[in-house]
Amino acid sequence: MLEIIGFIAGIFTSISFFPQAIKVIKTNQVADISLLTYFMFLMGLALWVVYGLFFHSPSIFICNAISLIPAGIIFIIKAKSIIEKKHARLQN
Amino acid sequence: MLEIIGFIAGIFTSISFFPQAIKVIKTNQVADISLLTYFMFLMGLALWVVYGLFFHSPSIFICNAISLIPAGIIFIIKAKSIIEKKHARLQN
Repeated sequence: MLEIIGFIAGIFTSISFFPQAIKVIKTNQVADISLLTYFMFLMGLALWVVYGLFFHSPSIFICNAISLIPAGIIFIIKAKSIIEKKHARLQN
Repeated sequence: MLEIIGFIAGIFTSISFFPQAIKVIKTNQVADISLLTYFMFLMGLALWVVYGLFFHSPSIFICNAISLIPAGIIFIIKAKSIIEKKHARLQN
């Protein structure tokens, strides 16, 4: 029973950021998104992937590796928008 | 060494959503935020808390319980804004 709870928890947390990534890709609107949040989230996920790898825990490795995808997309699009805004300001 | 990686990973993922919660509280702008993301994220975090409790794993319990706070704040403010918009539309 407990393993099932862990498995379902892992699925929820792994796939939970895909809707946010899809929304960001579709709308390209990221003003309300925190760059710092996704920077720290990516750091944490990457470390959990390393931990899962060395600790030989496929579930920790897979769950966090999956989350890296949407979190990485959101971070890149947010960072890009900040850089573009800075460029626009410099040219004015 | 491995435990240190897990500990740092846990800190990063636990506190990573506080900047997003603070930004949402300050600006009250949540148009770009996905309600579905934070609903699923909250489900996952809550299940991890149950898992950590029954599995007697304080680190899993504490890390995910901490994340529940900012994730819950973001979810509530986003849900509120959706309800308010619907109300405004009904009254027009």
